[in-house]
Amino acid sequence: MRNLTMLTDLYQLTMGYGYFREGKHEQEAVFDVFFRPNKLITYSVAAGMEQALDYLKNLHFESSDLDYLRSLGLFSEEYLDYLGRLRFTGDVYAVREGEIVFPYEPIVTVRAPMIQAQLVETALLTFINHQTLIASKAAKICAAAGGNVMEFGLRRAQGADAGIYGARAAIIGGCTSTSNVYAGKAFGIPVAGTMAHSWIMNFEDELTAFRAYAESFPENCLLLVDTYDTLRSGVPHAITVFRELREKGYEPKGIRLDSGDLAYLSKEARKMLDEAGFEKAIICASGDLDENSIRSLKNQGAKIDLWGVGTKLITSADMPALGGVYKLAAVYEDGQEIPKIKLSDTTEKITNPSFKDVYRIYDKKSGKAIADLIVRMGEEIAEDKPLTIFHPVDTWKRKTLTDFTVRPLRKKIMEWGTVTEELPTLKEHAAYFRREYARFWEEYTRQDMPHIYKVDLSSALYELKRSMVEAHGKGD
Amino acid sequence: MRNLTMLTDLYQLTMGYGYFREGKHEQEAVFDVFFRPNKLITYSVAAGMEQALDYLKNLHFESSDLDYLRSLGLFSEEYLDYLGRLRFTGDVYAVREGEIVFPYEPIVTVRAPMIQAQLVETALLTFINHQTLIASKAAKICAAAGGNVMEFGLRRAQGADAGIYGARAAIIGGCTSTSNVYAGKAFGIPVAGTMAHSWIMNFEDELTAFRAYAESFPENCLLLVDTYDTLRSGVPHAITVFRELREKGYEPKGIRLDSGDLAYLSKEARKMLDEAGFEKAIICASGDLDENSIRSLKNQGAKIDLWGVGTKLITSADMPALGGVYKLAAVYEDGQEIPKIKLSDTTEKITNPSFKDVYRIYDKKSGKAIADLIVRMGEEIAEDKPLTIFHPVDTWKRKTLTDFTVRPLRKKIMEWGTVTEELPTLKEHAAYFRREYARFWEEYTRQDMPHIYKVDLSSALYELKRSMVEAHGKGD
Repeated sequence: MRNLTMLTDLYQLTMGYGYFREGKHEQEAVFDVFFRPNKLITYSVAAGMEQALDYLKNLHFESSDLDYLRSLGLFSEEYLDYLGRLRFTGDVYAVREGEIVFPYEPIVTVRAPMIQAQLVETALLTFINHQTLIASKAAKICAAAGGNVMEFGLRRAQGADAGIYGARAAIIGGCTSTSNVYAGKAFGIPVAGTMAHSWIMNFEDELTAFRAYAESFPENCLLLVDTYDTLRSGVPHAITVFRELREKGYEPKGIRLDSGDLAYLSKEARKMLDEAGFEKAIICASGDLDENSIRSLKNQGAKIDLWGVGTKLITSADMPALGGVYKLAAVYEDGQEIPKIKLSDTTEKITNPSFKDVYRIYDKKSGKAIADLIVRMGEEIAEDKPLTIFHPVDTWKRKTLTDFTVRPLRKKIMEWGTVTEELPTLKEHAAYFRREYARFWEEYTRQDMPHIYKVDLSSALYELKRSMVEAHGKGD
Repeated sequence: MRNLTMLTDLYQLTMGYGYFREGKHEQEAVFDVFFRPNKLITYSVAAGMEQALDYLKNLHFESSDLDYLRSLGLFSEEYLDYLGRLRFTGDVYAVREGEIVFPYEPIVTVRAPMIQAQLVETALLTFINHQTLIASKAAKICAAAGGNVMEFGLRRAQGADAGIYGARAAIIGGCTSTSNVYAGKAFGIPVAGTMAHSWIMNFEDELTAFRAYAESFPENCLLLVDTYDTLRSGVPHAITVFRELREKGYEPKGIRLDSGDLAYLSKEARKMLDEAGFEKAIICASGDLDENSIRSLKNQGAKIDLWGVGTKLITSADMPALGGVYKLAAVYEDGQEIPKIKLSDTTEKITNPSFKDVYRIYDKKSGKAIADLIVRMGEEIAEDKPLTIFHPVDTWKRKTLTDFTVRPLRKKIMEWGTVTEELPTLKEHAAYFRREYARFWEEYTRQDMPHIYKVDLSSALYELKRSMVEAHGKGD
C-alpha cells in the first residue's frame, strides 16, 4: 500500500507544531465532514470511506518523511520525534458508502487528539470529496439512462487515481462496468470494451476487420460501426459478419456507435438489425455523453441499449469538485465537551456545533424517507411518540410526525484507531444505493426542480446553536 | 514504484489479442498524441512526460495480472504467456515539459509494435492530458496574477494523484509553491501554509491564538485574519502581535484573507499595516480564486501580494479535461511506411497522416515565435532559404518567411524502449516555460480574443494528406 501520510497540507503540520508547543496537541477534538448545498446536486451518494479508512489505519511517517520535514527548517527535533511515533488513535463515525446524503449532514466525524484530527483533514477530504462527487454524478447519469451505463473515462481522468477510484465510485453510483482494467482487477468490477477505430483502420477494409474480430471473439462480438459510413458501410458489414457468426452457432452481441447523430443512427441501425433477424443484438452508444444528452436522446426515441460514458462522468465535468469541508465541532476539556461554532455573515455558513449524530426518518406506511435529523450525540428518537421537526433557519416551518421509523445514518467504523466494522463489498455498496434510492420519493431525487429534502436539527441542537450564535453576537 | 501496466482500457487487450491471432501484433505502428482546438485554451503547456516515461520503462504484467486476465475468459494461454513477457520496446518522440504547444501538433509520437503501441495509449493519455491541463490552467492563473501564486487545492483534487501530479504541473505552469507536503517531498517543490480557522477557534480568543503562532514561528508569521471580523479584530490583533515580534527582533511575514470582499479588505488592511509601520508585511488572499477573479481584483486595485489558488486550479474547473487523443498515423510493411488517415465529415477532425515531426519558427530580428510547422519525419527546413507557409485548410492564406530561425520542438526521448535523454528537473521545466513564454508575442498568449498562432503543414505533408483524402473520396 502506498504510504499517503504526507498527503496533507503544510498548515496541518505547522498548526500541529503550534499545538505541540502549547501542550494542546493531544486535546480531544471533534471534526465533521459535510457538504454545502449546490445547485447541480440534488442528492449525493457517499463514497470513499474505504480508502479513508485504509489511510487512517496506515498512518505513519517514515524516516525519509521526517528528514524532509527537518529540511524545511520549521520544526524542533522533539516534534519530529513525536511525529515519527504518531499513529491514528481516534474514533471515526461515518455513513456507509452508497448512502444517499444531503448538505450539512456530518457524513464523517473524527474524534481524535487535535494534532491527529488536523493532520488527516486533507486526505480524508480528498478521498471523500472525489469519490462522492463521481458516485453522485454516476447516479445522475444512470438515472437518466435507466441503468446500463459503462464507465469509459480513464484516458480523460485527472491522473491514475482519478481513473481508478473514479471507476470504483461510478459503480457505487450505478454503473455496471468499466473499461479500466486496473480498477477491474483491484475492485472486482466487470470490465467492458471491444475495439477502437484504429482496429478497423489496420485492416484492408472494414469487413475484413470485423471478420477478424469475430474470429477472435465469437462469443463477445460487438462491432464499432462508425469508422467510415455507419448506415451504408458499418451496419451492413456488421450484419454480414453476424450472419456468418450465426452459421457457426454464435449469437452476436451487437454494435457500437461513437459519432454522428446517435438518435437517428440508432433508430435506423435498429431497423436494419431487426430486419436481418438480429433483434437481440444490442446497440451501444458512446461519445461525449452525460445525463443531459442521454435524456435528450431518449426523448428523441433513440434505440440505445447500453451507454458508454467517459469524460463527463470521470471528471464530473459540470462540477468537478464537491467542496466538502471539515469543520471543528467540539473540543474536550477534563472530559467535558466544549462545543465549537464557526460564525459567518451568511446564516447557511454557520456550522452546527457539538459532537453530533444523524438519523433518517421514514414514513411507516409507504416506507419512504421523510426527513433527516441532525442531533447531539446520544440523543435518542422514540418511534412511538410524535416528533416535531422544523426548518433549521425558517423555524416556523414545522411538521409533526407520527407513524414513522427511524434509522441512524452513521456507524462508528473506527474506535481508538482500530477498525470496528467489517466494510461491505463494492457490490454491496452498489446494491445498497439502489435499495435506498427506491426509498426516496422521485420528487426528492429528480434533477429538475426537485423538492428539497428536509435536513433538520433536533430541538436540543437547535437550542445550542442559537445560544452560541447569540453569545457571540453579544461578545467580540 | 506502483505498477500501472494494468492502467489501460480493456479494448487495448482485446484488440491486442486479435492482432496476436492475426499475426499483426508486432507490426510497427506510429501513433500521435495531440489536442484539438478548444475555446478556453489559447495555448497549452506540455506536462506529464516524465510520468509517461517512467510508466513505459516499467511496463510489465505481473503474474497476478495474468491470473486476473485469465479469469475474464477472453484470452488464450499463448496470448497471456506473450503478455507476461511483454516489455515496451518502442521509440518515443516528445516535446519537453514546459513547452508551449498548440492544437494538432503531435506532442508525443509512439513508434512501436502495434500491440505495445495500443496497450500504452490509455495511460499515456491519462498522464499527459491531466498534467498538461493543470499546467495550462496554472499558466493562465499566473499570467493574471503576475506570478506569486501558491497551489492550495489538494483537498478538492480528484484523488491523491490529481493532487500530487497536479501540484507538479502547477509548478511547470508558473506557481511558486504548493500546500501539498507529499508533492513538496516528491518533487522538491517549495511548500507553503500556516494556519486554518480551526487554529484560531481553538484558543480563548484571536489575539491569544496569534501570539501562540508567533511564538512557534517567529520567522514565518503569516496570520489568518478573517475568522471573526477582518478589519475590527483580525488586522488590529495581527498588528499587535507584529509589534511584539519586532520588539523581539523578528519581522512578520504578513496576513491572509480568506473570505469577504477581497478588494476592499485588502486595501483597508494595507493602509492599516502601512500606518503601523509594516509596509513589508505581505497580504495573501485565498478563497475560490481563478484567473478571472484575480484579474477582476487587480482591476479593482486590490492590494494582494500573494495568491492561494485551490479548487479551480487543481480541477481546472471551467474545463476539467483536455481531450487529448492518440491516433494512428502510419504502419510499416517490409520496412515501408504506409501512412494512415482517419477521415471525418468535419475537415478539422481529419487526422494528419504519416510519421511526423514539428518545428517552431522564430523571427530572427525580434526572436519571437512566428509559426509552428508539422512536417513529415526527416524533412529539413533550411534557414537560409525563403519558406512559404500556408493555412492547412484555407490554403490561400500564405506567407513567405525570410530571416528566421527554426527549432525542432521534439526530441527522441526513448529508443528501443530505452531512455535516450536525461530529463530536466522540475525547476528547469518551470524556468523553460517562462523563457519560451517570453518568446511569444502577447497577442498569441492573451486569454481574450487571442490572435491564433499558426500551426501549418509542410507542402509534402499537405500533399500527402490531400491525396489520401481524395483517394478515400473516390473509393469506399
